Amino acid sequence: MSDPSAADLERLFEQVKNWGRWGADDERGALHFVTDAKRAAAAALVREGRTVSCARELPVLASPENPNPAQHHMLRAGDAAVIPGVSGLEASMDYIGVAFHGMATSHIDALCHVFVGERMYNGFPAGEVKSTGALRCSVMAARDGIVSRGVLVDVPRARGARWCEPGERIRRAELEAAVRAAGAPVEEGDVLLVATGRDARRAVHGPWDPNVVGLAGLHPDCIPWLHERRVAVLGSDGVSDPLPGPGVPGWPIPVHQCCLVAMGVHLLDNLALGELAEACAERGRYEFLFVVAPLRIEGGTGSPVNPIAVF
Amino acid sequence: MSDPSAADLERLFEQVKNWGRWGADDERGALHFVTDAKRAAAAALVREGRTVSCARELPVLASPENPNPAQHHMLRAGDAAVIPGVSGLEASMDYIGVAFHGMATSHIDALCHVFVGERMYNGFPAGEVKSTGALRCSVMAARDGIVSRGVLVDVPRARGARWCEPGERIRRAELEAAVRAAGAPVEEGDVLLVATGRDARRAVHGPWDPNVVGLAGLHPDCIPWLHERRVAVLGSDGVSDPLPGPGVPGWPIPVHQCCLVAMGVHLLDNLALGELAEACAERGRYEFLFVVAPLRIEGGTGSPVNPIAVF
Amino acid sequence: MSDPSAADLERLFEQVKNWGRWGADDERGALHFVTDAKRAAAAALVREGRTVSCARELPVLASPENPNPAQHHMLRAGDAAVIPGVSGLEASMDYIGVAFHGMATSHIDALCHVFVGERMYNGFPAGEVKSTGALRCSVMAARDGIVSRGVLVDVPRARGARWCEPGERIRRAELEAAVRAAGAPVEEGDVLLVATGRDARRAVHGPWDPNVVGLAGLHPDCIPWLHERRVAVLGSDGVSDPLPGPGVPGWPIPVHQCCLVAMGVHLLDNLALGELAEACAERGRYEFLFVVAPLRIEGGTGSPVNPIAVF
Amino acid sequence: MSDPSAADLERLFEQVKNWGRWGADDERGALHFVTDAKRAAAAALVREGRTVSCARELPVLASPENPNPAQHHMLRAGDAAVIPGVSGLEASMDYIGVAFHGMATSHIDALCHVFVGERMYNGFPAGEVKSTGALRCSVMAARDGIVSRGVLVDVPRARGARWCEPGERIRRAELEAAVRAAGAPVEEGDVLLVATGRDARRAVHGPWDPNVVGLAGLHPDCIPWLHERRVAVLGSDGVSDPLPGPGVPGWPIPVHQCCLVAMGVHLLDNLALGELAEACAERGRYEFLFVVAPLRIEGGTGSPVNPIAVF
Repeated sequence: MSDPSAADLERLFEQVKNWGRWGADDERGALHFVTDAKRAAAAALVREGRTVSCARELPVLASPENPNPAQHHMLRAGDAAVIPGVSGLEASMDYIGVAFHGMATSHIDALCHVFVGERMYNGFPAGEVKSTGALRCSVMAARDGIVSRGVLVDVPRARGARWCEPGERIRRAELEAAVRAAGAPVEEGDVLLVATGRDARRAVHGPWDPNVVGLAGLHPDCIPWLHERRVAVLGSDGVSDPLPGPGVPGWPIPVHQCCLVAMGVHLLDNLALGELAEACAERGRYEFLFVVAPLRIEGGTGSPVNPIAVF
Repeated sequence: MSDPSAADLERLFEQVKNWGRWGADDERGALHFVTDAKRAAAAALVREGRTVSCARELPVLASPENPNPAQHHMLRAGDAAVIPGVSGLEASMDYIGVAFHGMATSHIDALCHVFVGERMYNGFPAGEVKSTGALRCSVMAARDGIVSRGVLVDVPRARGARWCEPGERIRRAELEAAVRAAGAPVEEGDVLLVATGRDARRAVHGPWDPNVVGLAGLHPDCIPWLHERRVAVLGSDGVSDPLPGPGVPGWPIPVHQCCLVAMGVHLLDNLALGELAEACAERGRYEFLFVVAPLRIEGGTGSPVNPIAVF
Repeated sequence: MSDPSAADLERLFEQVKNWGRWGADDERGALHFVTDAKRAAAAALVREGRTVSCARELPVLASPENPNPAQHHMLRAGDAAVIPGVSGLEASMDYIGVAFHGMATSHIDALCHVFVGERMYNGFPAGEVKSTGALRCSVMAARDGIVSRGVLVDVPRARGARWCEPGERIRRAELEAAVRAAGAPVEEGDVLLVATGRDARRAVHGPWDPNVVGLAGLHPDCIPWLHERRVAVLGSDGVSDPLPGPGVPGWPIPVHQCCLVAMGVHLLDNLALGELAEACAERGRYEFLFVVAPLRIEGGTGSPVNPIAVF
Repeated sequence: MSDPSAADLERLFEQVKNWGRWGADDERGALHFVTDAKRAAAAALVREGRTVSCARELPVLASPENPNPAQHHMLRAGDAAVIPGVSGLEASMDYIGVAFHGMATSHIDALCHVFVGERMYNGFPAGEVKSTGALRCSVMAARDGIVSRGVLVDVPRARGARWCEPGERIRRAELEAAVRAAGAPVEEGDVLLVATGRDARRAVHGPWDPNVVGLAGLHPDCIPWLHERRVAVLGSDGVSDPLPGPGVPGWPIPVHQCCLVAMGVHLLDNLALGELAEACAERGRYEFLFVVAPLRIEGGTGSPVNPIAVF
C-alpha cells in the first residue's frame, strides 16, 4: 500500500469500520475504549505532578496557516474599568470568536466533522448535521472530558531530525519503530499523539500554508495499526493526515476519513507538541495522564481545546 | 462582621492581600499554591476513573440569566458537505463566539478581570489592561492548566435543602461546618467548589436574572478563611459573591474583589455542580482530582472552560 | 376576510403570486417596478434637501425586543491609539456583528428569507439556501441600492392616536383612508412605509417582547391592495405582519409570506419612523425620495440598513 | 513639497485645520458643508434614474488585501427552514460580523478613527475613544446619511491608463487637470471620489497586500486643494493615502491625518469605482447624486457602507 489506490482505501475504510460495534445509536465511537479502569490507570501514571499544555495560543493574527484569524475583542478595558452605577465595580471583559477548524487552532474534531459518501460515523446521514447544529455525533460525545493515558510518538526525534518535512508520510513501520524506541507501547484506549516537529520548523522558517506547502502526517498504512491497537483518540501537531493527500479520487484525507467516519476516533489537530516532546525526552518517558476538556457546544462539530499532559 | 462596613472590607482587603508575596512581577497569585507535589497527590485521589464535567452548555439561547447569548454558527452543514474542488472532501464546520463573563457561561476569571481602586492583583494599574488585551495578569497565567485537588462544599445538602435561595449569604461558620461534615478538609492549593444548588433551582423554577432576583454566595467573613487555608482557586455554580452585594459603597462584590485582586485567587463562575454534588454524595467523598484547561488567550481576561473532576 | 381561513390565505397567496412574471430565473421580484424613470421622478421630489434616517441604532443591548444583541466591539481605543512600529500611526478601530433578523435591528429581508411549502419567491426550493449562503434570491438582488419614491402611511396620526396597540391589525379600508388623507396616493414602484407608532409607544412604555405582547401590522386584506398598486418594497416600524399572527395553520405571518414569497416584495423591518412621521406631518407631505443601500452580502438573506428619506 | 518634510506636514496640518470652525463641541466637521440647499441641488442632478453601487462585496474570503475576513454565517438555511412550534413558519437567517477598517471592506471612517498627537478632530483627546466606544466624533455624526453631489476623478482614464500603479502619488496638478478634463468642477460640500483603477488592476493581477505592494493615492499637496474647495467627504477605491506613506516620521498617512483630524473630512475607503467610472465615461458626466448611509453605530469609528450614485 505504498501508493494506495481508491480501491485500497475503500477496502481499508471497510476493514476498520466500527459502525454498529457499540450499537446502532452510538455516537461516542472509540471513546468507549476509555473505560473507568483505563482512566484510573492513567491517573496512576502521574508521579511528579508536572503539567504540560499541548495547545497553541488562540490564533488571532493572520498568517499563511491562519487565513481566518480568531477574534479576541476586549469589551471593556482599564480605560473604562469603572462601571457607572455600581459603586466600586471595576472590571475588564472580553470576547472570543473562533472558526476553530482550520490549520492554526488547537481543536478537537467531533465525529460529525467529516463525511464519506455523505455518511458520518455509524452510518448517520450527513443531512443530520443541520445548519442549526449537528443532531448526531456532536462534540457533546466528549462533554465529560477525555481523560486517558497519553502516549507521544516523537517522529523527528526517532529520526534524529528536528522536524519532518511538509508533505512527508510517516509509514507504519516507522511509527511502530518510534513507539518501540520510546518504550511506551500503544494500548487500548490511549490518546496517541504524533509529533512531527511542526512547532520547531515554524520557529525557524515561520508559518507556512499547509494547503500549499504541505504538512507531515500518517500514511494510510498506519490506519489498521491504530485500529488494531484500539486507540481512542489521535492527535498531532499537524492534522494527522499528510498534506497534500494521496491524490486518490475520493480520499483526500484518509486518516480523517477512516478515523472519524469509519472508526469513530476523535482527532486533535494543530496541537503544540514541542514542549511535550521536550518533557518526554528529558524523562525518557513517553506516557502520561492526558486530559482534554472540550467546551460543551450542543450540536458542535468540535471545540477549541487546551489539552493537558500530566507527568 | 455580620453587616460589614466599608472600613471592615477595606481592612479585610488589606488583611488578605498577597501583593508582593511571590515577587513584584508575579501574575499567577495563589496558583503558586498548586505545587507539583500537590498535583501528584491530587492525581492519587483517582480510584475509579469516573469523570464528571462541571460546565454548563455554551449558552446560545437568551434567558433571564443570559442577556448576551453566545454564538454557535454552523459554517457548513450536511446540506453543503461536499466541498467543491477536492474529490471526496466532505465536512461540516462551525464557529463559536462568546462574551464569557456574565451569568451563564462556565468560565474562569483571570486576575485582571477585576480592579479595586484601579489596581489589579499585585498592584498593577488597571490601565495595563488595554483595549487590545491585558498586558498583565491575563488568563495565560493558567495556560498550562490547573490540576489540583478539588473539594466540593455542598451547602444545600449540608442544610438538608435542595438549594440556597437567591441572595443568601453563606457564613464562615456554615462553610466550615459543611466542610467538616463532608470529611474533606480544605488544604493548601485546593480548588474549592461551593455548590449552592443553582442548577436544581433552575430545573424547578427556570432561569432567573441574578441582577434582579439574586444569587447565593459567600459572606465576606469566609474570605479570611479562604486566605488562611491557602485555597488556590475558588469556584461556584453562582459567582461566589452573593447578589445583591453587601450594599457597602466601593464593595459591590467583595469575594471577587478580595480573591482576584487582593489574594490572586482565580475564580470559576457559573459552574454546573449538580452532577458533581450527586457523585460526591453517592460516594460519601468530597475530594477528587480536578482539571481546568483554559484556552490560551493572550491578553485574555478569562476563558470559557469545562472543568473536569475525576474520582 | 375578517378572520381569514387557511383556504382564504392559500387563495390570496395564489392570487398575488408573481412567479414567472419576470422570467423563470428572476430573483428581483417587485424591484422591477422601480424603473429608471421611477427613480428620476423620485429624485424630483426633493425640494428642501432635508434628510431623515429611518433606522434605529444598532441594538447592542439586550431588551425584551432584543434577545440577541448585536456586537459592537472596539478593537483598539484611545488607550492603545499609538500603533507601534509606524511613527505617527494613531488610530482606533472597531468591529460589528449582528444577526440582523429579529425584532430590533432595522433591516431588509431578502426574498430568500421566508419560504412557503419549502419554496421561496419564483418557486426556487428552500434547499437553494445552503448553510454556506443563499444561491438564489439573496440580498444581492438589491445590491445597487433601492432608490424610489417613498410614501409614508402614518396610521396612528390618521386615527388621532399616538400609536397602534400591539397586536392590532390594520385593515385595508383604514390603510386606504389613511393614504387618501395623506394626499400621497400609492403608485407603481413605491416604497410603502407603514408607521404604527412603535417608537412612540416604546418611549413611553419601554421595549416589549413582540412575541409575547405583540406588534401592530397589516391585516391580510391589505395584501391584494399592495399587489394591485405594484408596491416595490414594504416597510414598517414593526415587521409589517401583526403579531400574534392570524392563528391559521400554515400562515403565521401572511404579509411576509405573501410579500416575500408570492409577490417578490422586499420588506424593511424594525424601522424608526417617528422622525419621518414628524417630518411628513410638519410639511403636510407624505412622499419623498427614499434610498436603501443594503450591504453587498453574497448569499445573504438580508442586511442591516439605514434607509434615508430626502425631502 | 515634492518630498515633504515633517515640518512641511506639520505646517500643512495647521494650515487646513478646522478646529473650532463650527464650535468647540462640533463633531461633524466638513459635513457642515453639505447644506440642505446642497442636497437639493444634488438631487436635481438626477436625470435618468440609473443607480450605481460603489461598494465591494463584504469580503468574507482571506486574500492578500484581506487578512481579517468578515464573517457571513448562516444561522438557519433551507435544510432547517421549517421552524418547529409555529405551523407554517419557514425561514432562513444569517449573521454578519466585520472589522471593517482595513483594506478590503468598503467603509466610512468616522472622525474618531485617526489621531494626531493623541488628538482627534476638533482637539478632542484620543482618550475619549474608550474601549467601550467613542464618546466623541463617532460615526453617528453621519447618522442621517450623507446625501450630496458626488464628483468622480478618474485618474487612470485622464492618463489614458488602465490603472495607477501601487505606490503612485497623485499630485495636485494632475488632480486639477483631471477634474478640469472631466468638466465637473469640485464645489463646496461635494463628495470627491478618486478612482485609481484598483479594481481593474485586481481583475488582471489578483489582489495584493497594500502594506507590501502599495496603493496609489493622493500626494499631500492635494490636501490644501481639498481644503480650499471645501470638500465634505473624500473617497477612493484605495484609502486616499498612497502606500507606502511619505516616509516622514510622524506622518505615515497624511491624507487621513489631515482630512479626518485637521479638516474633519470623513473618508470612504476601499470603494468599488470601476462601474462608476464606466458610467461616467459613457455619459461624459462626472457628477451625480451620491448617497452614503452608514449604520447607526453608537460609539462607532466608522461603518461598512454601500454608497450609491444616481445619474
